[in-house]
Amino acid sequence: MTIAEAAAALRARRVSALELTQASLERIARLQDRLRAFITVTEESALEAARRADQELAGGLDRGPLHGIPVAVKDVYATRGVRTTCGAKIFAHYTPDFDAAVVERLQAAGAVLVGKTNMHELAYGITSSNPHYGAVRNPWNPERIPGGSSGGSAAAVAAGMALLAMGSDTGGSIRIPAAYCGTVGLKPTFGRVSRYGVLPLDFSLDHMGPLTRSVRDAALALNALAGYDPRDETSSRRPVEEYVPPPAPSLGGLRLGLPENFYFEGVEAGVAESVREAAREAERQGACLVAVRAPDVGAMNTVSRIILMAEAAAVLEPYLARREDFGEDVRLLLDQGRLLSATDYLQAQRLRRMMRDEFSRIWRQVDCLLTPTTPNAAPRIGQTTVELEGNVEDIRLAATRFVRAINMMGWPALSLPCGFNTEGLPLGLQIIAPPFQEARLLRVAAALEPAMPRRPLPDL
Amino acid sequence: MTIAEAAAALRARRVSALELTQASLERIARLQDRLRAFITVTEESALEAARRADQELAGGLDRGPLHGIPVAVKDVYATRGVRTTCGAKIFAHYTPDFDAAVVERLQAAGAVLVGKTNMHELAYGITSSNPHYGAVRNPWNPERIPGGSSGGSAAAVAAGMALLAMGSDTGGSIRIPAAYCGTVGLKPTFGRVSRYGVLPLDFSLDHMGPLTRSVRDAALALNALAGYDPRDETSSRRPVEEYVPPPAPSLGGLRLGLPENFYFEGVEAGVAESVREAAREAERQGACLVAVRAPDVGAMNTVSRIILMAEAAAVLEPYLARREDFGEDVRLLLDQGRLLSATDYLQAQRLRRMMRDEFSRIWRQVDCLLTPTTPNAAPRIGQTTVELEGNVEDIRLAATRFVRAINMMGWPALSLPCGFNTEGLPLGLQIIAPPFQEARLLRVAAALEPAMPRRPLPDL
Repeated sequence: MTIAEAAAALRARRVSALELTQASLERIARLQDRLRAFITVTEESALEAARRADQELAGGLDRGPLHGIPVAVKDVYATRGVRTTCGAKIFAHYTPDFDAAVVERLQAAGAVLVGKTNMHELAYGITSSNPHYGAVRNPWNPERIPGGSSGGSAAAVAAGMALLAMGSDTGGSIRIPAAYCGTVGLKPTFGRVSRYGVLPLDFSLDHMGPLTRSVRDAALALNALAGYDPRDETSSRRPVEEYVPPPAPSLGGLRLGLPENFYFEGVEAGVAESVREAAREAERQGACLVAVRAPDVGAMNTVSRIILMAEAAAVLEPYLARREDFGEDVRLLLDQGRLLSATDYLQAQRLRRMMRDEFSRIWRQVDCLLTPTTPNAAPRIGQTTVELEGNVEDIRLAATRFVRAINMMGWPALSLPCGFNTEGLPLGLQIIAPPFQEARLLRVAAALEPAMPRRPLPDL
Repeated sequence: MTIAEAAAALRARRVSALELTQASLERIARLQDRLRAFITVTEESALEAARRADQELAGGLDRGPLHGIPVAVKDVYATRGVRTTCGAKIFAHYTPDFDAAVVERLQAAGAVLVGKTNMHELAYGITSSNPHYGAVRNPWNPERIPGGSSGGSAAAVAAGMALLAMGSDTGGSIRIPAAYCGTVGLKPTFGRVSRYGVLPLDFSLDHMGPLTRSVRDAALALNALAGYDPRDETSSRRPVEEYVPPPAPSLGGLRLGLPENFYFEGVEAGVAESVREAAREAERQGACLVAVRAPDVGAMNTVSRIILMAEAAAVLEPYLARREDFGEDVRLLLDQGRLLSATDYLQAQRLRRMMRDEFSRIWRQVDCLLTPTTPNAAPRIGQTTVELEGNVEDIRLAATRFVRAINMMGWPALSLPCGFNTEGLPLGLQIIAPPFQEARLLRVAAALEPAMPRRPLPDL
């Protein structure tokens, strides 16, 4: 069931918010030991909120499409009175006395918070094999990682534990788990959704966004989340353009770019084909396909990693004395960050500006870009490297290869399920749009979505 | 003679631009060996520009108060076809094919460029004892430094070699030489005067501004220089408020803050008294004096130095292999900058934001701040430390002590000659205003100026 379907059922009195929430909580209870998608389940307050939603709706107070919908948020979002761990031992006992802006907006929209999702420790990795709160498992195959860092959010949505789960994306952390778990994942433009109340991993790369079961649901979530917030100094004052789906989807007149030079090498069998098939579908709907060359994505990823490693080390510096409290992978990344010089960091920021200027010219040629989200489907839990067309690569570098640079640009991007590999694991199509063109991004995604291959989730 | 006087004389046909320029060039020729205020004298193009100015004025084309006025610019400003060394050996043969924005604006205002002034190497120090182009000497006492880094500009204006000389100020580099040489020095608000075409020493601390013989002249210069420039990405779009001197100066209704906690300890005899005397004069003119406490200036200076050292090392990194081409002091500062970690730099930027928020609250209490510009008058050439009330201090730390933090705030500040020490060396009063309140700053400076002690420059 999607949010749009649940919202319609609620208003037709075919279901109550309480029933939706109970179903969600039951599904969580049944799957939590298997999937470890949650760190905290807020059963009591969820049931209370669901009852309130039912009363409000019965009383004629309709807060919109999220009203009465069970949602989850990654444990990186501050929640008043509810423990907020960021997936870390160092925050195991941190209970904020305030809500993150995203949580406030979800509550104002009447959504029912069922819990806080598990994640890669401190959002600093892509496996979500959390050393403190358990390894999140992929609902399509529990031997596989769900991707990360928003792995619990992706698993929760894919497995029907919540209809919407919020993630955060610094180098792909929404889009990678969306691709690996077969959900929609939307990283909005930098500044579009407030970061207030979220532990920053990186001042200039962090983005907040939803994981959902459909493009329409991602749009409904964005409509509720987007907007200026003076408490986030990077928040944009640009007016929000509400996305309304067109009566009949069409891609007529749109130029879609396929950046052949960096997106179609070193990928798993089926990945390039699934993107090309999506592109052909776009063409059938009237889009014009344009082969483009984008700037050196390897260089962009390197620059982005330097900025991330330095800023993450700076943010977490107060905790670095507690070395034994960090998982090994995160500790090593923080140690690497501390080895970077101020000169390294500043040169990376200068290069970033040059690269953004250069890459931005691509928007003169095309309206959106299509790429794979990841070069591979979900690796196994414990796997550290992957061989792709003969090259052995760290799974973190592989997973972030096509998505990380987009954080540095600040552009909106969405991962759309676009098929399955030979092992039946989901693959994702990344659609990228120019800054603040979320409506265009959603239009393309919604037009392609019905044509994408679908399969039922295996029994869990 | 001031610009205002020269402009009046030009329009009364009592003097021509050619005569003004010839007088300026003769004065430069006579004093260059003694004071080393210039790196390049543009005699030929100056005479040509002066003749053109005379023709324009004779033909009824009046470009305003700078028309036909001999001016100099620090050798950090790019000048088309004229060598631009930044006081460095590494740029000894650099001849730009474009003009800095400031040079364009001066030329559009009809000013006559007589030359490029000597400076501390790469604007990275306060002595202006340049190892490649000679030590600039203080016109008040050639055994003394003129201050820096805009030492040649201050010496040129103080000794009458130009009526206006442009400086740049990253940690006091306009205000310190203005104080040591007895000229007015204005550092406008960050973003008010374009930095296009100036070698950046520090992306976020550099300010461009004039050194002049009077407050009125500083205002005339600012009126010509201020404004938005899309080529400088830190340029402000805020409309420029032209400064027009009031018919009768008065400080009625203004609250002037004297930050007693950090400005009146460890200073040379006479310095605190001269500031207090200026404050009493302000009170006589109707101002209300307010004793204030400002945040820890020592901490602000440390944070500012970390940012500067890191950013300067990043800017100059391409040249660092040529170690022998740098003066020892600059090389050591660059080496220190390279030792800083990205974490150090990022924490300094975070502290900077907190400090700016905290220090900015002082503008609820007062309209301007009054402090000494420097705790001491000009040290001797070759002197490296100074003893002030029993503390031995590096002359660079002493000179920048009261001015450096203001760069980090981005606020406008002006150094006004305010008297002399027991050895007859000039002292400076620093007046500081909130962002974009240059008109208020100039109003206070202009009101105090007539009451400040004056002495003729010793014969050179």
